[in-house]
Amino acid sequence: MSQHDTSHDDEKAVSNISRVTHDSVHIHGIDLIAMLGNVNLGDFAFLELFKRLPEERESIVFNALVVALVEHGLMPSAIATRMTYLGAPESIQGAVSAGLLGLGNTFVGTMEGSARLCQEFMAEGAGPETDIEAAAEHIITHYREQKKVIPGIGHPVHKPRDPRADKLMAIAVEQGFDDTPIRLMQAISEQASRRFDKTLPVNVTGAIGAIATSMNIDWKITRGLGVMARAIGLVGHILEETRTPTAQKIWNRAERECNEDTDPSN
Amino acid sequence: MSQHDTSHDDEKAVSNISRVTHDSVHIHGIDLIAMLGNVNLGDFAFLELFKRLPEERESIVFNALVVALVEHGLMPSAIATRMTYLGAPESIQGAVSAGLLGLGNTFVGTMEGSARLCQEFMAEGAGPETDIEAAAEHIITHYREQKKVIPGIGHPVHKPRDPRADKLMAIAVEQGFDDTPIRLMQAISEQASRRFDKTLPVNVTGAIGAIATSMNIDWKITRGLGVMARAIGLVGHILEETRTPTAQKIWNRAERECNEDTDPSN
Amino acid sequence: MSQHDTSHDDEKAVSNISRVTHDSVHIHGIDLIAMLGNVNLGDFAFLELFKRLPEERESIVFNALVVALVEHGLMPSAIATRMTYLGAPESIQGAVSAGLLGLGNTFVGTMEGSARLCQEFMAEGAGPETDIEAAAEHIITHYREQKKVIPGIGHPVHKPRDPRADKLMAIAVEQGFDDTPIRLMQAISEQASRRFDKTLPVNVTGAIGAIATSMNIDWKITRGLGVMARAIGLVGHILEETRTPTAQKIWNRAERECNEDTDPSN
Amino acid sequence: MSQHDTSHDDEKAVSNISRVTHDSVHIHGIDLIAMLGNVNLGDFAFLELFKRLPEERESIVFNALVVALVEHGLMPSAIATRMTYLGAPESIQGAVSAGLLGLGNTFVGTMEGSARLCQEFMAEGAGPETDIEAAAEHIITHYREQKKVIPGIGHPVHKPRDPRADKLMAIAVEQGFDDTPIRLMQAISEQASRRFDKTLPVNVTGAIGAIATSMNIDWKITRGLGVMARAIGLVGHILEETRTPTAQKIWNRAERECNEDTDPSN
Repeated sequence: MSQHDTSHDDEKAVSNISRVTHDSVHIHGIDLIAMLGNVNLGDFAFLELFKRLPEERESIVFNALVVALVEHGLMPSAIATRMTYLGAPESIQGAVSAGLLGLGNTFVGTMEGSARLCQEFMAEGAGPETDIEAAAEHIITHYREQKKVIPGIGHPVHKPRDPRADKLMAIAVEQGFDDTPIRLMQAISEQASRRFDKTLPVNVTGAIGAIATSMNIDWKITRGLGVMARAIGLVGHILEETRTPTAQKIWNRAERECNEDTDPSN
Repeated sequence: MSQHDTSHDDEKAVSNISRVTHDSVHIHGIDLIAMLGNVNLGDFAFLELFKRLPEERESIVFNALVVALVEHGLMPSAIATRMTYLGAPESIQGAVSAGLLGLGNTFVGTMEGSARLCQEFMAEGAGPETDIEAAAEHIITHYREQKKVIPGIGHPVHKPRDPRADKLMAIAVEQGFDDTPIRLMQAISEQASRRFDKTLPVNVTGAIGAIATSMNIDWKITRGLGVMARAIGLVGHILEETRTPTAQKIWNRAERECNEDTDPSN
Repeated sequence: MSQHDTSHDDEKAVSNISRVTHDSVHIHGIDLIAMLGNVNLGDFAFLELFKRLPEERESIVFNALVVALVEHGLMPSAIATRMTYLGAPESIQGAVSAGLLGLGNTFVGTMEGSARLCQEFMAEGAGPETDIEAAAEHIITHYREQKKVIPGIGHPVHKPRDPRADKLMAIAVEQGFDDTPIRLMQAISEQASRRFDKTLPVNVTGAIGAIATSMNIDWKITRGLGVMARAIGLVGHILEETRTPTAQKIWNRAERECNEDTDPSN
Repeated sequence: MSQHDTSHDDEKAVSNISRVTHDSVHIHGIDLIAMLGNVNLGDFAFLELFKRLPEERESIVFNALVVALVEHGLMPSAIATRMTYLGAPESIQGAVSAGLLGLGNTFVGTMEGSARLCQEFMAEGAGPETDIEAAAEHIITHYREQKKVIPGIGHPVHKPRDPRADKLMAIAVEQGFDDTPIRLMQAISEQASRRFDKTLPVNVTGAIGAIATSMNIDWKITRGLGVMARAIGLVGHILEETRTPTAQKIWNRAERECNEDTDPSN
């Protein structure tokens, strides 16, 4: 039996996030009861990720980042949520999940990409002295050679500037965060625009990638920021769907077109 | 063609949450760019639900409600998230979704139940003059007759009081919200404790149900509060899982026990 | 330590479905290796549910039931799957899940409803002697009084008969299953059609509800039949999406309409 | 308005899988009504993927492949499903989805890996004349140099042979499929076992990867085989969970261990 002994410490499945006694709850060592009424949801999310509450400047920038990710309109994830709600209105959790499942490489991947690009750049020792222009040129050339899309620049609607990106970067600089990754993204944007003769502004995912780097948020967890923020937005879409249904209309049209295509008499 | 004409207004699948032009984004009519850096994540979630930003007292109470729902330890939903992350570490969105899918009738249902109970009570015209004690007695009797569990009271660990519930209710009262639903839940808790000779404090879901009533949050959307809050907590669990794995241990033990059961030689 | 002792039998989390040794695998006691090449997927699904392989007549009818549930065209669940695949092409499991999440009360619920209706009828001792017409009349009146929709009858396209339902019921009768629940659904269909002066044929969910009753499949698990079957169909939709994309088109149109609505200059 | 005209053919979101009229349903051009009662679930799944029904030998091998993937015991995905069912018993679709979401790179990825390995090998023109031993040596060396795990070989329990793999490969050969990829996997297994002095049999994912290659199933869709098969198995786990609950036990223990860890008085 000994090899099955489950009392070994290394066999214990333990989470250290919360500590609960009959009259107290602590989250990462901080008294939850004292936080209630004093800590906002964004700061609490920061605590979940960093195991400490944010300083004021961190609170301002972190809340701004996640707020910018909450609501992106009738995107594929919102359509998936609404379709799911149409079929299973008893399960709000299912409808939100269906929408979150689309936050993959296509959309959120660009945020990871720009965060990773910035973090690899910083890991090589970049600082105030670094020649940002040369680095940007090198990065653009590298992506071109690999035939990969440069993450974090360009937007179909927001031209010539993405106002969300500009505001987020301005806030981060204003709050005193290291602007090296931001300057890198901007240099990439400007050089790529000239080189490819296109309008390629730093977009919101590029800005978040850069700022996440300044805030020491690992690029591997940036997708998590998108997921937590969008869960809020998708609840908003469900609420709107209960009042102004869209799913039935989208479905009707898709089905009608399939039948048009089938039936030559139409 | 006419019956297939997709330009009819009533055929349009429209969301009115966000409005986007090349240089602006508005969410429920409010300038997103102006909000960035000034509005915290909880207030923005309020905007998604109520189509307006909260007053200060609403901000304090709403943030407290959702913060209280973020982190509940190594619950079934956190275990599901960690199991899923073990199998699909490339898909944080999948791991969070797997956890959210467990926020159903068993756990979040009690929050809906207490909110509904309070809202049906208020809908009957309850106010300062109402005999809360008589109402509580009536409700308890009704649930007993239907052999249904009274939602929002009792907790396996938090005895004789649930400190989260007490704090949330205190904040709501302090911020001047109508305390009628809170007094109802407390009266139910006290009478039920006496009647069944058990310690049945108002728990966190009971407190949230009562406060949601005072804040005019429809009981049907309270599950959405749980979903948006827990998405944040589950990202925290994934982050911890990357550092202190538990899923493999839980799985090893479950599998080992299956085999013990199979193999009589053990 | 004693109350924490995990070696208690009643603490073991055991699944008895599969038994594995180094050179064998048994599923519900049957040798998997011997089944490979001899048992089809539908029969294996039957084994998962019934803990035994089907007789031939059961195999024929069960395979027909689940086959009928696999593919229902560009339904909301298929649209959700395709939207999710657009966003997260790296996660086929996520795209299938997003589609499955819509198999809730709206669509699959009617199958549960008709199965339940038939099973409650049979539980009251219905048999060859029972006056089916009187029972049908009673059931219709009951649903009308409760203002509930009668499950399992009526279809927007398949009129005056649903060919899938007719074929499934014919197969079940041909294979010698008790036709009492089938006759009940047909009587309900005929009487309701006359009473409401509408064409209300037994539809595919009504037929499956009746046949599931004859096969002793608990109505509570019928939703599972829909889920397992549709998972197959949704993989088919993903494959088609990789070749003939639809999600981008559906999204483009939805987004364009939102903007049309916004911008009066268009 | 013209650029918003939705009547353009290239704007239509069309699925060609099913064609429905009031009295007929065709799936990939084949009459569904005629298939009911004659086509088993595995053959219908083949139709969804290949747009045609299988020949007999294809039916035998394809059914065997997917049957082998249905049930893998109390794996992480089954635990996630059971945890989710505990929280949301009203949503079988949610519980199955939670389990499917774990079918990612860790587990199903090895099937993709071996299928891809075999398909890249075949794409280089491999045939009966090819020196399989040299190819295997080359592949092993390549994976070693890249410090990547060779997919499709090795198993913690099934030693010295994986009986499922052996049976699947025997069936495929017996049914006359090209055995080149199978011989490749076996050569890799033998050489790797010698080279690393370990028992590294072709495992079930390696066998499926090889056979999928012989059947012209693109490696990119092999994950879909796992997803459709496991959906069936997870419904079986939910059914067992309703009769022999495990989720509560697994949760109790995990939570107890967290508290042990917290409370030094234990």
